[in-house]
Amino acid sequence: MPLARIDLVKGKDEKYRQEIGRVVYEALTGVGVPQDDRFQIVTEHDAANFLFAPDYLGIHRSPELVMIQITWNAGRTVQQKQALFRAIADGLHEAVGLRREDVFINLVEVAKKNWSFGNGIAQYAV
Amino acid sequence: MPLARIDLVKGKDEKYRQEIGRVVYEALTGVGVPQDDRFQIVTEHDAANFLFAPDYLGIHRSPELVMIQITWNAGRTVQQKQALFRAIADGLHEAVGLRREDVFINLVEVAKKNWSFGNGIAQYAV
Amino acid sequence: MPLARIDLVKGKDEKYRQEIGRVVYEALTGVGVPQDDRFQIVTEHDAANFLFAPDYLGIHRSPELVMIQITWNAGRTVQQKQALFRAIADGLHEAVGLRREDVFINLVEVAKKNWSFGNGIAQYAV
Repeated sequence: MPLARIDLVKGKDEKYRQEIGRVVYEALTGVGVPQDDRFQIVTEHDAANFLFAPDYLGIHRSPELVMIQITWNAGRTVQQKQALFRAIADGLHEAVGLRREDVFINLVEVAKKNWSFGNGIAQYAV
Repeated sequence: MPLARIDLVKGKDEKYRQEIGRVVYEALTGVGVPQDDRFQIVTEHDAANFLFAPDYLGIHRSPELVMIQITWNAGRTVQQKQALFRAIADGLHEAVGLRREDVFINLVEVAKKNWSFGNGIAQYAV
Repeated sequence: MPLARIDLVKGKDEKYRQEIGRVVYEALTGVGVPQDDRFQIVTEHDAANFLFAPDYLGIHRSPELVMIQITWNAGRTVQQKQALFRAIADGLHEAVGLRREDVFINLVEVAKKNWSFGNGIAQYAV
């Protein structure tokens, strides 16, 4: 179910982008998302179109910033969300050397009935 | 009001992409969205940036997968959502020959006050 | 916190796109978003992929239309939303000459716990 939009600046090779996808997927399964429930869209941007404040909340961001927006079901606890954030930031640091400061994450929560995984059926509404 | 983001892999011609937009629009009006309430953004991706599990829930997806995320007003019933999913999957199958397994849909629900259709006014808040 | 996705048709120069980002940011701070809380993704589209009804609700849209989708925290009043819409439409008109009819805005609301601004921490959950 989670639909993850992953946005970053142009210039990273395919291996790097694939690793980001893998880390986000594994972090999600680590907090209870089912195996194989993976839907991710990576979009690369010109720096001029990827705009952010480098120091909001005293966190120092670089042009390597990755913005990750995940739509998933409502109902996860704050502990699960915190574990997810930590797993993504740690995982990206380990996998591709991204600074943890350069990981921005936002979660959008929806009802279970709001998904169709194919065949025109709301599989989770049953 | 619905804002639809339609994501797919590069390589389909303009007619194909336009047909996807038309089908999604007609499916929405079929479940009560007003005529002419159409706002859609189609984005084409390199296969390496369009990541999904080909078999989640036993549905077999191909590289033709189309991911559709629709933001619309809260308040629709599960029956309306199910009818929408069915109409999009059936419509895409009929219009462009897309396999129904290759139609992924997610709905995000917002309040009526959360839209401005132009002129800096919240038209639905009145 | 707000994550703004700004979509428009290809063909506008960098200055124009940067001005849109600036106006949206300043409109947000004008209704209470903290200084430097800026995260924006601008995406340019071929006209064939940027689909909208030119006259919905009697507002006449041109190919210059800009669609702005802002994810931010729940809790803002309708007055704040109205002020935001007005400030964005007026600001874009003044800064880049955009017709106010060509400003489409949608807000998605999330919980404060749904953000990580870096370091794998849910800064607003504390």
